[in-house]
Amino acid sequence: MRTLSVFMLLPVLACAAQNPSPAPAPSGDGLTMAEVLENAGPSDWRALDPNNTLYMTLASGVVVIELAPSFAPKHVANIRALVKQGYFDGLAIVRSQENYVVQWGDPKAGEEGARDFGDAAKNVSGEYHRDATALPFTKIDAEDAYADEVGFVEGMPAARDGAQGRAWLTHCYAMVGAGRDMGADSGSGAELYVVIGHSPRHLDRNVTLVGRVVQGMEFLSTLARGTGPLGFYEDAQEKPSVERIRLGADMPESERAAVEILRTDTQTFQKLVDARRYRREEWFIDAVGRVGLCNVPLPVRSVKNSE
Amino acid sequence: MRTLSVFMLLPVLACAAQNPSPAPAPSGDGLTMAEVLENAGPSDWRALDPNNTLYMTLASGVVVIELAPSFAPKHVANIRALVKQGYFDGLAIVRSQENYVVQWGDPKAGEEGARDFGDAAKNVSGEYHRDATALPFTKIDAEDAYADEVGFVEGMPAARDGAQGRAWLTHCYAMVGAGRDMGADSGSGAELYVVIGHSPRHLDRNVTLVGRVVQGMEFLSTLARGTGPLGFYEDAQEKPSVERIRLGADMPESERAAVEILRTDTQTFQKLVDARRYRREEWFIDAVGRVGLCNVPLPVRSVKNSE
Repeated sequence: MRTLSVFMLLPVLACAAQNPSPAPAPSGDGLTMAEVLENAGPSDWRALDPNNTLYMTLASGVVVIELAPSFAPKHVANIRALVKQGYFDGLAIVRSQENYVVQWGDPKAGEEGARDFGDAAKNVSGEYHRDATALPFTKIDAEDAYADEVGFVEGMPAARDGAQGRAWLTHCYAMVGAGRDMGADSGSGAELYVVIGHSPRHLDRNVTLVGRVVQGMEFLSTLARGTGPLGFYEDAQEKPSVERIRLGADMPESERAAVEILRTDTQTFQKLVDARRYRREEWFIDAVGRVGLCNVPLPVRSVKNSE
Repeated sequence: MRTLSVFMLLPVLACAAQNPSPAPAPSGDGLTMAEVLENAGPSDWRALDPNNTLYMTLASGVVVIELAPSFAPKHVANIRALVKQGYFDGLAIVRSQENYVVQWGDPKAGEEGARDFGDAAKNVSGEYHRDATALPFTKIDAEDAYADEVGFVEGMPAARDGAQGRAWLTHCYAMVGAGRDMGADSGSGAELYVVIGHSPRHLDRNVTLVGRVVQGMEFLSTLARGTGPLGFYEDAQEKPSVERIRLGADMPESERAAVEILRTDTQTFQKLVDARRYRREEWFIDAVGRVGLCNVPLPVRSVKNSE
């Protein structure tokens, strides 16, 4: 028998623990987000592709990352090559900067004793935007400080520039990127970071985003902040260990996350965005009537086999 | 002799530890934020008003909160009354919800054994917006998902609604609000929360904001997340203790934070916003050219007396 439970990367309610009843509907079907999810059918959800899913094991728990090969094919291929040869195993979290990012990789990168890249590339050309032509893009009606058009592509927050025909992933909370040095093509995927604060959207098109955390964000966001410049840890013993990173496809199915992700190219997702725009939960005094790109939750539900 | 050092609630640089040189200037004076702050004069900074500053002592450190009586005079007065009688001393952090809020107050609120309010009010009418007439408002040129106009008032992020002549504080990272139940007038200031994730701007005008954390955010943002619904802690022993909250005016000067805050009603602040809009640090490939309200840092510097 399959039992389902839904949990959120973003919260459903504000401060009240009560289960609210719907207020009059300003638009759409007049549903709350909880109701939209209750009404969602099996085809509204999708499984994670094991070939696009990383499992990062920390002492505190496992972080599950969905990769975005549609936007960063070269970085994703290089990350897969690094992971397959165990590059990350035994490395560390090197940085935790308040209201910004947590970053992991080789503490000796660029120094003597740095880990070998094996058959992975040392540098990958930057993948800052892509051609938007023929790219399925679920646009949402939202003003945005950093882009003309915003929406979702394959479950990832994204933006589009109509004039130049480009699309790119956006630095919302939980998005994962590939750190780089000064050069535009100096990243490789060997040093990765995740957004843990207010979305630093000025990084859009300046760093290659490679995916997002779909489970286990709390193991990263609560790490003690580094006391060095930019939140780097100063002492080796402060750096939390990255026990290993594995690709889902290289793990037995029983060890992969039993989760499904809400699709973003469906009517149900449009209703979810509407439910976030018009807050119908009883607790709200002002129904808002607006929504921001990085305020739209991307629901994940657990799908557990229980006999 | 006074020695000065500047630190930020928001990060200055992205991923590179190098101290960048300025790139060609698309506008303004062509300065980076670091240069704007280097050039700032004494009158660009202001002290904290001890009568509007709370010091919350946790086991891990002290959190400094600047209150906003211009927007929430009744709540601020009630918080002062609660603090003066030691209401918060020995209470606890009751909630830590991933990418949302950390909240503190009386774990027994509303139950038997709840702490007495003394001469403070049990309920304060909601202060969700105020008259914008004659309110000094430093508008910034930014698209915003949730408001027609955004900017800063007395060092706090705010929004304005031209048509209705209202202004309100906005739920940016580190802003502090007064939790409430279902009723619009059910808050009191006895239960406070702080934003620890992507700014939940849908709460604007739905909860009374009372101020913001200016120092010590890391003691709140890194707290283990609660495992109950909405991130509430489930067991009493999980709840981090609030040792005490004091008003600066009731503390010896030597125990108050030796910090100054960058004023937001100055030319220097306009240059800072410009420096965040056009990223002139060498690391940036795309100078951005845009800025979001909650992405503007509100610099705090330490001012230490050293003999």
